[in-house]
Amino acid sequence: MSDNADGGGGADHAQNSDQRLLIYEASRVSDVARELQDSASDLISRTWKEEQSLRQRALALDSDIRRLQSSLCSASKSPSFDSKLTEKIEEDIYRAKCLLSDGDVASLLPSKDHGRFLNMFLGPINVRATRKEVRLKVKEEYNSYRDRTAFLFLLFPSMLLFLRSWIWDGCFPALPVQLYQAWLLFLYTSLALRENILRVNGSDIRPWWVYHHYCAILMALVSLTWEIKGKPDCANKQKGVQLFLVWAIMQGIAMLLQNRYQRQRLYTRIALGKGFEAYVGMLLLRTAFVGVISEWQVVVCGVLLVVMAVGNFANTVETLMAKSRFKAMKRSKSKNDFDQLPSPTYFR
Amino acid sequence: MSDNADGGGGADHAQNSDQRLLIYEASRVSDVARELQDSASDLISRTWKEEQSLRQRALALDSDIRRLQSSLCSASKSPSFDSKLTEKIEEDIYRAKCLLSDGDVASLLPSKDHGRFLNMFLGPINVRATRKEVRLKVKEEYNSYRDRTAFLFLLFPSMLLFLRSWIWDGCFPALPVQLYQAWLLFLYTSLALRENILRVNGSDIRPWWVYHHYCAILMALVSLTWEIKGKPDCANKQKGVQLFLVWAIMQGIAMLLQNRYQRQRLYTRIALGKGFEAYVGMLLLRTAFVGVISEWQVVVCGVLLVVMAVGNFANTVETLMAKSRFKAMKRSKSKNDFDQLPSPTYFR
Repeated sequence: MSDNADGGGGADHAQNSDQRLLIYEASRVSDVARELQDSASDLISRTWKEEQSLRQRALALDSDIRRLQSSLCSASKSPSFDSKLTEKIEEDIYRAKCLLSDGDVASLLPSKDHGRFLNMFLGPINVRATRKEVRLKVKEEYNSYRDRTAFLFLLFPSMLLFLRSWIWDGCFPALPVQLYQAWLLFLYTSLALRENILRVNGSDIRPWWVYHHYCAILMALVSLTWEIKGKPDCANKQKGVQLFLVWAIMQGIAMLLQNRYQRQRLYTRIALGKGFEAYVGMLLLRTAFVGVISEWQVVVCGVLLVVMAVGNFANTVETLMAKSRFKAMKRSKSKNDFDQLPSPTYFR
Repeated sequence: MSDNADGGGGADHAQNSDQRLLIYEASRVSDVARELQDSASDLISRTWKEEQSLRQRALALDSDIRRLQSSLCSASKSPSFDSKLTEKIEEDIYRAKCLLSDGDVASLLPSKDHGRFLNMFLGPINVRATRKEVRLKVKEEYNSYRDRTAFLFLLFPSMLLFLRSWIWDGCFPALPVQLYQAWLLFLYTSLALRENILRVNGSDIRPWWVYHHYCAILMALVSLTWEIKGKPDCANKQKGVQLFLVWAIMQGIAMLLQNRYQRQRLYTRIALGKGFEAYVGMLLLRTAFVGVISEWQVVVCGVLLVVMAVGNFANTVETLMAKSRFKAMKRSKSKNDFDQLPSPTYFR
């Protein structure tokens, strides 16, 4: 390079200025990062303080409402108390309570107890979203998840039953059935987790639907331990598995109907469909008691099926009744007040 | 009441003022609720806007850092580039990156991908805490959960093995073993969920420990489908179950040691303990191939055990090496810069 000292010097010079630029840039980047850190920590602590003060005011309001309700309750027992006025007072209280429980303040209040289930699986982590849009998105996502899985719920057992008669020569091999059962276990666990998260985010999904998924988790777990016996005479030995799959198909149809026609009020049919599931549970129990299959798993699954079917039926009917009460209320009250409330569906 | 018109009038009067007070109180409560709602929604939207602007600045900074890094990379290849200066630039960049990834800004950045596992179970819900104290609490809770469960992890299989020889006459009944396996499935699922949540909250727990729990979930699932055969000759038929329980006891001891002596650097011993687990996996595989038990479940569990043991061993050794590198770095760098970084442990 010595034969081109000038050019080399020029290159060195350029290199030096490059280097200086890099040094400058690096120290700038480091400064900006520090600034950002300061602003962020300032924002977080400021927000926290403001939230705290709102929280305290909200808690004070909550206890005021409680006090007011109890004095209204004792005052309204007196016959001279004007019932029109009582109604007016009740409306004010109702409005305040709605704002506290569903408004933006709600997201700042110490979150409702997460419940044991979430705590067991996730530990004490906050899963409540602050912004209402996000909370609504969570609910939407849950609904679309139900839609997607209802389809699989119908597909898998149908495929198993189909393959049994067309390829497997009337006998289920153990592995595909067990894979299906493991999928069920995963599905029910994820549904139960998501529903608990929805509840924390203010959805008033009926508690039964969550308990019902706890039962289903238990059932899927029990069904995994259930030995799938092979030939000979597998038609008889596998009667339990077969009934279980038939139940699953019916359940899949009920889920699809429920998701699709939730808005179209085909509740009576769904309630009947769900009541019919109890029949399959009974059949399972019969096979156990008649002695065709005497494993405890069959008995437990049968009992769980009957419990779930009865609960589902009762809850669907109750929803139906709540719907008609709601309609009556809507007719009797001014339209403005109730238009914004959701109609009771899967969510109470 | 007409015989006491005066007294009655007095009571009515009191009643009226009571009523008026209630009306006043109710409308006040309703007003306060509306005010609170307004302040809360104002706070939320204000915070959101400020967060958005910080987010944008942070993203811009992030791309600046990337650009700077690549130009440093190409510039430092030239021989005339001063290596001392390179070091200075690298330090500035490193500092900026640390603030972006671990500082308060990090909690405002679009959260790292939640990962498929969390998404499958929980859906797209945010589990990242904004405040650093909360994030630290989550990590603490996870550690105490591990402590609590390590104890049960040792207790349950020991009890089963003890009861087998003292009460069950050398033969495991199916139900207690299956209950234990179901508990394992729950435990591993909850650990995997909690670890994924920790990662979202910025913990740099080694990915292997999370994958390792996915393997363990699979193993617990497979072990549930594993038929527990009864008399006669159950000592031979149940050899797989027995080995599985022995493995669990060893695993429990390793967990206890790991939790207790994490700070006391008994890593070599733990690594050896973990390497020893592979031996039990091999034994399981041998029982399968020699033909004592020929179920596929035994083979799968054996393979999974060996995979986990090898991975655990390799990762513990790597942690050990990272620790010594870290020490060397700490010696060579100024104390101030690195004192605040955590020493690599279970968390990388």
